[in-house]
Amino acid sequence: MQQRIWTTCIGEHIGERVRLSGWLHHLRQLRHVTFLILRDGKGLTQIVVEDPTLAEQLASLYHESVLSVEGLVIANPQAPNGIEIQQPIVEVLNPSTAPPPFDLFRPTLKAQLPTLLDYAAISLRHPQRRALFQISAASMEGFRAALRREQFVEIQTPKMVASATEGGANVFAINYFGSPAYLAQSPQFYKQTMVGVFERVFEVAPVFRAEPHDTPRHLNEYVSLDMEMGFIENHRTVMAMLTCVLQGMVQTISEQAAEALKLVKLTLPQIPAAIPIIHFSEALELIYREMGEDARHEPDLSPSHERWLGEWAQRQYQSEFLLVEGYPMVKRPFYTHPDPARPQYSNSFDLLFRGLELVTGGQRLHRYDDYLQALQARGLNPEPLSGYLDAFKYGMPPHGGFAIGLERWVARLVEAPNIREVTLFPRDLNRLTP
Amino acid sequence: MQQRIWTTCIGEHIGERVRLSGWLHHLRQLRHVTFLILRDGKGLTQIVVEDPTLAEQLASLYHESVLSVEGLVIANPQAPNGIEIQQPIVEVLNPSTAPPPFDLFRPTLKAQLPTLLDYAAISLRHPQRRALFQISAASMEGFRAALRREQFVEIQTPKMVASATEGGANVFAINYFGSPAYLAQSPQFYKQTMVGVFERVFEVAPVFRAEPHDTPRHLNEYVSLDMEMGFIENHRTVMAMLTCVLQGMVQTISEQAAEALKLVKLTLPQIPAAIPIIHFSEALELIYREMGEDARHEPDLSPSHERWLGEWAQRQYQSEFLLVEGYPMVKRPFYTHPDPARPQYSNSFDLLFRGLELVTGGQRLHRYDDYLQALQARGLNPEPLSGYLDAFKYGMPPHGGFAIGLERWVARLVEAPNIREVTLFPRDLNRLTP
Repeated sequence: MQQRIWTTCIGEHIGERVRLSGWLHHLRQLRHVTFLILRDGKGLTQIVVEDPTLAEQLASLYHESVLSVEGLVIANPQAPNGIEIQQPIVEVLNPSTAPPPFDLFRPTLKAQLPTLLDYAAISLRHPQRRALFQISAASMEGFRAALRREQFVEIQTPKMVASATEGGANVFAINYFGSPAYLAQSPQFYKQTMVGVFERVFEVAPVFRAEPHDTPRHLNEYVSLDMEMGFIENHRTVMAMLTCVLQGMVQTISEQAAEALKLVKLTLPQIPAAIPIIHFSEALELIYREMGEDARHEPDLSPSHERWLGEWAQRQYQSEFLLVEGYPMVKRPFYTHPDPARPQYSNSFDLLFRGLELVTGGQRLHRYDDYLQALQARGLNPEPLSGYLDAFKYGMPPHGGFAIGLERWVARLVEAPNIREVTLFPRDLNRLTP
Repeated sequence: MQQRIWTTCIGEHIGERVRLSGWLHHLRQLRHVTFLILRDGKGLTQIVVEDPTLAEQLASLYHESVLSVEGLVIANPQAPNGIEIQQPIVEVLNPSTAPPPFDLFRPTLKAQLPTLLDYAAISLRHPQRRALFQISAASMEGFRAALRREQFVEIQTPKMVASATEGGANVFAINYFGSPAYLAQSPQFYKQTMVGVFERVFEVAPVFRAEPHDTPRHLNEYVSLDMEMGFIENHRTVMAMLTCVLQGMVQTISEQAAEALKLVKLTLPQIPAAIPIIHFSEALELIYREMGEDARHEPDLSPSHERWLGEWAQRQYQSEFLLVEGYPMVKRPFYTHPDPARPQYSNSFDLLFRGLELVTGGQRLHRYDDYLQALQARGLNPEPLSGYLDAFKYGMPPHGGFAIGLERWVARLVEAPNIREVTLFPRDLNRLTP
């Protein structure tokens, strides 16, 4: 049998008979002709059915039935994309057993988000929905490619751990052969440990947060794009690498997901050569002076302050991105490196994208004694962390890193109102299936 | 300050002063000269210390102290790799606080595996140990690159699931906000579902198996290289793609981990253009005829039969790889597609590499009614699987896929006696840390 080709490749075969395979996406029955829209893994194509017997057979099938079609490729300015298939021979590979719960052929899916998520196996087939996951795939690959170019090594670290990473709360407990264990909230300890091995490492893997709130911004399981690098000057070295990684991600998306971008009508943001930077304390001063709100004694930025700063960066620097550095130590985890000049502030940063926090990173402590002191100051027991602390006992360079939430990145990029829209099979307080 | 360069790049700077950063890997004190061996994330370099004060200062440091060294690059045929650093100025960035638990400078680590794993933060720094993880990283990238070339889309699917994938036993239970849940044993259901979306998908992610046995071949958490593809003829289409993927993986390792291969003295295996194939029933006949063991009524191959078949493939075809197809349905999971001609056998396969099982794959059922029957025949309840079964209700093409265990692949490749040697932080019956 003739080799099937993708619908997106028929332009290279005008005047030839080709074989296509895919799903019965839609059937438009006019008086003298029927148009079969076939969807495959890449795109859609229009097939002109003039044979009334075939038209009738197709009309008897439910949408989403799986077909194989052989036909002649014809250039026709009237057809979508200027090409269509004529004189088709259709084989039904697997009929759908019921009408789909919603119409996949409409430009936009007409169902509420919970329904779309309940029927993910079907809703994800919609061209606009799946475009989001092509952007997601290209984002992962862009992250990896940018870091490989910078000599980072990919690692995979365990997700079942003996102690919580970011603190005792918000962990999922596992029964590990009768012993208590947890799902990793981040690969933080492991990626730092691996700086002692490769200096520069990255990981793309799931992380688990048992946060009991149900918001459009939170998931209980998400994909974390993590990196860590040694021999830095301070957190500014990490911020420069973040800029380089974001540029690489946007570049890879534009190369590998060009069709998807068109489908969701997305123009990729410009990543400035140097993303503007503001110190946390200056940000609060600015908010006091220009916004009129006095938050100068707050240890963190509120969502409304983040939004205001995002607008300010847009006005001031024509940048959709803003790096805020120097968050107070009190709000950062124990491994955070203080600012040597002002030790109440940290060498850490957040990246705001369109006024929303997208990335958190910073310089970490690298001296063993500093770890012991930091743990003691927070009343934490160093004993369960001995495998991690070993890395610092035996010589570690100044280092730092960051983590980007993949789904959060894509959600911000496409301006999805709910992060679940850019998650294949989301997990939240009320959702564990499909 | 001058930009640091990698030790592996000093050959491009002969006659220049450069800055290097890394760990005090070893110090060899001779009568008139001291050799400092500096290790960075990529390699080792020899630094000639003639200044007795500096030699004394270095001798006072523990191994693994972190240094920054500025010095003159000199070609010297006596030196390792023919290059060394002279006239060094050394800055101690972070002294090690204790002597390492074993000597990292010896060609091979002299400690038992449990000790090496307990001190993973240190043992992984050994050049030969870390070389294994460069091969592992290149394997992941080779898998992805080969499949991207074949138009596969990368996915990330949830690891917290409501029901066990491969059967009820051997799952880790989680407390999911008070509801019972499990860690995914494989992304099987999700990758099949995604065939309905993209036709061709792959995932590189952890899987979790609560198998209570402690062997050199098993881990309770490992990285699974998974793929699934639609519109196949039968399992043979999947086997051909597997061959293509293995070729890609070996190619990428040879390109991206050339130094690591040298360090562990590994010659990569040849992947035949067509890997020899034997049917399960023929394999048992052959074992009966030539090995003299009658296992013709067994539903599976024993490890000793697999080894014998591996040797046979080597003798018969000069191939280290052998594909065994047609395993009995009774030993395969419910979603396995039977051989239409002999329905007691399946359209599934195992790949043996050097006589050991490395990959499992096959064609899956694609008709909704076949799923209902298969579940009923095994006494399984379809209700909890409704999100998965939706994919088949609404039209799915013939499809199949395979999974390669990353650690198993690397272990076989480098002939590691224990799979834990090629796992950064292994998880087993007795090990949950570091």
